[in-house]
Amino acid sequence: MTTSVEPFDVVDLIRTKRSKEALSTPEIQWLIDAYTRGYVADEQMAALIMAIFLNGMERAEIRDMTLAMIASGETMSFQTLGKTTVDKHSTGGVGDKITLPLAPLVASFGVAVPQLSGRGLGHTGGTLDKLESIPGWQADVSNERMFEILKDVGAVICAAGSGLAPADKKLYALRDITGTVEAIPLIASSIMSKKIAEGTSALVLDVKFGSGAFIQDIDQSRLLARTMVDLGTDAGVTTSALLTDMSIPLGLTIGNALEVRESVETLAGGGPADIRELTVALAREMLTAAGQPDADVEAALDDGRAMDSWRRMIEAQGGDPDAALPVARETHVVTAPRSGFLDKQEALPFGIAAWRLGAGRARKQDPVMATAGIELHAKPGDRVEEGQPLFTLHTDEASRFERALASVEGAWGIGSSAPAARSLVVERIS
Amino acid sequence: MTTSVEPFDVVDLIRTKRSKEALSTPEIQWLIDAYTRGYVADEQMAALIMAIFLNGMERAEIRDMTLAMIASGETMSFQTLGKTTVDKHSTGGVGDKITLPLAPLVASFGVAVPQLSGRGLGHTGGTLDKLESIPGWQADVSNERMFEILKDVGAVICAAGSGLAPADKKLYALRDITGTVEAIPLIASSIMSKKIAEGTSALVLDVKFGSGAFIQDIDQSRLLARTMVDLGTDAGVTTSALLTDMSIPLGLTIGNALEVRESVETLAGGGPADIRELTVALAREMLTAAGQPDADVEAALDDGRAMDSWRRMIEAQGGDPDAALPVARETHVVTAPRSGFLDKQEALPFGIAAWRLGAGRARKQDPVMATAGIELHAKPGDRVEEGQPLFTLHTDEASRFERALASVEGAWGIGSSAPAARSLVVERIS
Repeated sequence: MTTSVEPFDVVDLIRTKRSKEALSTPEIQWLIDAYTRGYVADEQMAALIMAIFLNGMERAEIRDMTLAMIASGETMSFQTLGKTTVDKHSTGGVGDKITLPLAPLVASFGVAVPQLSGRGLGHTGGTLDKLESIPGWQADVSNERMFEILKDVGAVICAAGSGLAPADKKLYALRDITGTVEAIPLIASSIMSKKIAEGTSALVLDVKFGSGAFIQDIDQSRLLARTMVDLGTDAGVTTSALLTDMSIPLGLTIGNALEVRESVETLAGGGPADIRELTVALAREMLTAAGQPDADVEAALDDGRAMDSWRRMIEAQGGDPDAALPVARETHVVTAPRSGFLDKQEALPFGIAAWRLGAGRARKQDPVMATAGIELHAKPGDRVEEGQPLFTLHTDEASRFERALASVEGAWGIGSSAPAARSLVVERIS
Repeated sequence: MTTSVEPFDVVDLIRTKRSKEALSTPEIQWLIDAYTRGYVADEQMAALIMAIFLNGMERAEIRDMTLAMIASGETMSFQTLGKTTVDKHSTGGVGDKITLPLAPLVASFGVAVPQLSGRGLGHTGGTLDKLESIPGWQADVSNERMFEILKDVGAVICAAGSGLAPADKKLYALRDITGTVEAIPLIASSIMSKKIAEGTSALVLDVKFGSGAFIQDIDQSRLLARTMVDLGTDAGVTTSALLTDMSIPLGLTIGNALEVRESVETLAGGGPADIRELTVALAREMLTAAGQPDADVEAALDDGRAMDSWRRMIEAQGGDPDAALPVARETHVVTAPRSGFLDKQEALPFGIAAWRLGAGRARKQDPVMATAGIELHAKPGDRVEEGQPLFTLHTDEASRFERALASVEGAWGIGSSAPAARSLVVERIS
């Protein structure tokens, strides 16, 4: 009953979502704009997003929300580049370093891969944190320099500028402290607003499920993938998604420098089978979206083209691809207490353990330890003998071992038979 | 995953309510304490109360919440008074001035009636606003003076000190701007925390339903009444509730000075039938709770005892019971366009009209106009003749008539037959 020049009353909008009704396009446009300029208070937005969390949003509302977040800031365009651009986004997981081999691999086919990435918070690592363990490498590049690198090298992995979708930035920070991170309409609009604002012409999503993923439930992950593919398609971006298993760590390393090492092994044609499998699957998706469905991506890993592309990409941002990666001052090996088959290795506790060793940060402003993490010497299904190393903890501070070991307690096991093999890529959504 | 000396993480607690699980006693104690001292932020509490709004709370949680809010501030005790104390609380409605005749009426039987009241916000008036239209009358009295008045006169209607349940004060302000006012667990704990902290030995609740009430639905109102009676009983306060109809305005006046005039008429043994009926019903409840089930309350209204008590109560707070009440500078009469029976008179639009005339405030800091309001000349079921006055609008500013008239447009009607009579008090809950 107050008078105001604003076209809507935020309390009315909260009541609408509270009653499970849909917000209109002008209501959502106003809401996001008013929140960005501070007219709608954080506590009001918090109540509204909890109502969205519990009551959901319709497809049109999610689209309006995404477009309103894009409209809150700058947008980019790669049209002047003279190359097809394809972007990839992963919802994140434990040991997920796929962007590192993938971006240069796809770029080696003449496609531009602009990877605007973030830093890690919590148990899933950040791509920029990983690359920063390479001596000299810099995450921040100007837009002009990004265009140059895309032209010359094809792949760039850098920090997203603060100008893209500022409403999303504000909303994401709010979700983080209000227990509303996992709402599918909010995740989908958050990811897609940045990707659409970035101006890519095609996008491939790696949507994960399982204990180490953002969303554990496969049906919820499928719904998230479907929601994002629809959003991209509605916005004119060729979008597809792979639904992938994140119940065990990806590859054999978790932690920044350790994951760079594994990425380089993969770029050299080696690396763990699951890392190669997922890198190849995502590269095929991206190249298909870029009009090269028949590209032989495995050959590019095996013959050094992907590695060349990697070296040029790292050098373009000041990094030395030949420099030795930092190594932890302290290591602690856990060995098999008996012989048998490794039949359990849960992603989340291993992710938390790596985080506790120093690989991740608790607060945005905290530094990460480049050397910290976990090296796995066996994966589920592998035969192990009593006394054989199962995994090694790495850190610069030995005092961190205790809490890391507590996290993985009960998270792995040895049985008398090998567990059933699991598919890594379980579904494609387009 | 942050480290902290706090025993709980508020995000975990939000997730618990988000998942429709119950919070434990220590969790709720910590939550309310941490919110009061500012460790839990408004946006976090806003997300939590929206989750409570949508997912509810169990009886034990509501009790814990109430006790935690009481523990956030001072408590009072009337044990040294040497009198039984009985308090009354109404959930509020249009034309609800019952506290004014009720408190002195009950006090005339030797019972202490401490009425710590509030000011109005929105379309329901505030008891203190009404009394402040009496020349000289002061709402603020010290605790010492309140005890003196309770000893000497028996009844005191005054502003609640800021020391009682400060957590509730903070939470109420948050609910107001986040669309979470109507959540039953929150309403119940808000009202009862103040009443229990106040230290009364018995409490009678007037819980309203219908268009002019806080909660319109009768089943929801019944649930609120049941929840509050349980809370009072659990805290050792003899508590009962009457469920009363608030679909039409109470009595024939809405607005501060107008309602005082009607209250005085009732104390003189007259007044509208519904005001007398509800005053008598609530007085009987209060006196029964005070151990006087056979008190002849109607006699006390008719023989001047209640009026004596009123005069002494008003004088004790500086008011002149003989002073003329302020009268509006402008009035506007609405007459019957045809003959028939008044068959509609909706409480909410009439309440909003009175508010627009100046009887209420939009913001806490706004003043109210003592003279503003509406005088009803007929009630539903009354026979009216064409051209007969139906109601009169009162205000000091003629420019307010237009918006007030717009509010009551369609809110009253004349038909060919009288509507079915409605019961005012529909149920007793104890």
